Amino acid sequence: MNDKPKSPAKSHGRLKITPSLTPRSLMDEAPHLTGAWEARVITLFPTAFPGVLGESLTGRALDEGRWRLTPVELRQFGEGRHRNVDDTPAGGGAGMVLRADVLARAIAAAQAGAPTDRRRWPLVYLSPRGRRFDQATAHRWAAAEGVTLICGRFEGVDERVIEEYGIEEISLGDFVMTGGEIAAQAMIDATVRLLPGVLGNAASTEEESFAHGLLEHPQYTRPAEWRGRKIPDVLLSGHHGEIEAWRRAEAERLTRDRRPDLWAAHERRRRDGGET
Amino acid sequence: MNDKPKSPAKSHGRLKITPSLTPRSLMDEAPHLTGAWEARVITLFPTAFPGVLGESLTGRALDEGRWRLTPVELRQFGEGRHRNVDDTPAGGGAGMVLRADVLARAIAAAQAGAPTDRRRWPLVYLSPRGRRFDQATAHRWAAAEGVTLICGRFEGVDERVIEEYGIEEISLGDFVMTGGEIAAQAMIDATVRLLPGVLGNAASTEEESFAHGLLEHPQYTRPAEWRGRKIPDVLLSGHHGEIEAWRRAEAERLTRDRRPDLWAAHERRRRDGGET
Repeated sequence: MNDKPKSPAKSHGRLKITPSLTPRSLMDEAPHLTGAWEARVITLFPTAFPGVLGESLTGRALDEGRWRLTPVELRQFGEGRHRNVDDTPAGGGAGMVLRADVLARAIAAAQAGAPTDRRRWPLVYLSPRGRRFDQATAHRWAAAEGVTLICGRFEGVDERVIEEYGIEEISLGDFVMTGGEIAAQAMIDATVRLLPGVLGNAASTEEESFAHGLLEHPQYTRPAEWRGRKIPDVLLSGHHGEIEAWRRAEAERLTRDRRPDLWAAHERRRRDGGET
Repeated sequence: MNDKPKSPAKSHGRLKITPSLTPRSLMDEAPHLTGAWEARVITLFPTAFPGVLGESLTGRALDEGRWRLTPVELRQFGEGRHRNVDDTPAGGGAGMVLRADVLARAIAAAQAGAPTDRRRWPLVYLSPRGRRFDQATAHRWAAAEGVTLICGRFEGVDERVIEEYGIEEISLGDFVMTGGEIAAQAMIDATVRLLPGVLGNAASTEEESFAHGLLEHPQYTRPAEWRGRKIPDVLLSGHHGEIEAWRRAEAERLTRDRRPDLWAAHERRRRDGGET
């Protein structure tokens, strides 16, 4: 609607950003552990964060300063009096497309103070066109110093900004959502739980299922009998070797039945001698 | 810790549930359109909802009563004075397992008034062991009258409750999260946007990319030139046939390059004559 170039946006939004400084953290009241992992999220809905990430283990770790979450409000980089961020698709069609120039200003602000080496700080656009997020991606991000996630809305973003910044496209899965915010939260959750000190003793082994390339075995707890259904005898035997063997066999059975793709990959690795 | 059976839990939680009645909606102040699609979510973190779902298109549709969201707080069905919901895994190991009896009480309350035919009202546990959520699942759920989603935490749930209720296991993807809440929000978002009247004119075509089994073509909008990068001429030509052909070719190129699995499936369908 308005093509004239403009100077870097003044900050009228909820979060004021000075492009030359690191964006303020939403969690400025939390202690800042030096070098704490940080997620910066470019979004039209900064108040949607931390959302579920503020609860439970991820929430406690956020309060303890083990990681940081910095929403960057896209709207404040918009064009004109109404801070427009989108425009109609070139060539026609339904919906709206996020403008390259607006998004570029938001990226410049979000990346302030972050390493330019993308291995140390990935720059990601959440898009169903991207490579699928998986446990390996979570490990890669957790090993970095932080990540900047761009949440789209509408029909997507102008392709030129993706090319200009060499932005990595990552998808949550083969389905379409109204925006990238929930996908960002899912990926941040999967990443943050891998950071040192976040899980503690709780739930610290479940991840091994994907690490071994197998689905997790069934779990049981008290009562020993419920509605006529008993916990399998072996689990109550106290015989650690047999318990381990039973769990391994169940994990293999479930993987074979439910995920032939994972099973085939597992068998390949085993044949190649890389996996016990 | 406490195996003795107990009568249906009294309601001490934030949401009081009378098992013989439909659970109260979080959105009782919104108009109730007759037969509006409903998501019921069994969770330890009811305040995490609606979260991002309360924003933008899904939030407006929620306010308009086009769908309903009913968190069911698991804690109120817990055991004893501390309302414990979990216990240590039978056979040993880290983490905690959600108890079958506790979850069964929550399910009974959540399902009150819902059709027992699972095609009309799926009952789902969100688990990395499940079948992966995809656009077809979203369409299936949107065609139902509602869905009940069980959010796990910790090491998972007692296997017997899954067997007893024939619960469907669905996974967001091949990664591990601290809980099911964000996965539930992702799946609800993907489903709700398919309900009549939710999208309106906005973003109504993007979904067609997965419907055709292809990734979406690149998008562009004003300005026509940005940092020396121009919108492809054909998109500014006004020639609808050529624009359509260009977009189709780009969608095919991206799918071939990025998702050989989708491309192979697409080619198979085309050979079988089912796809244009």
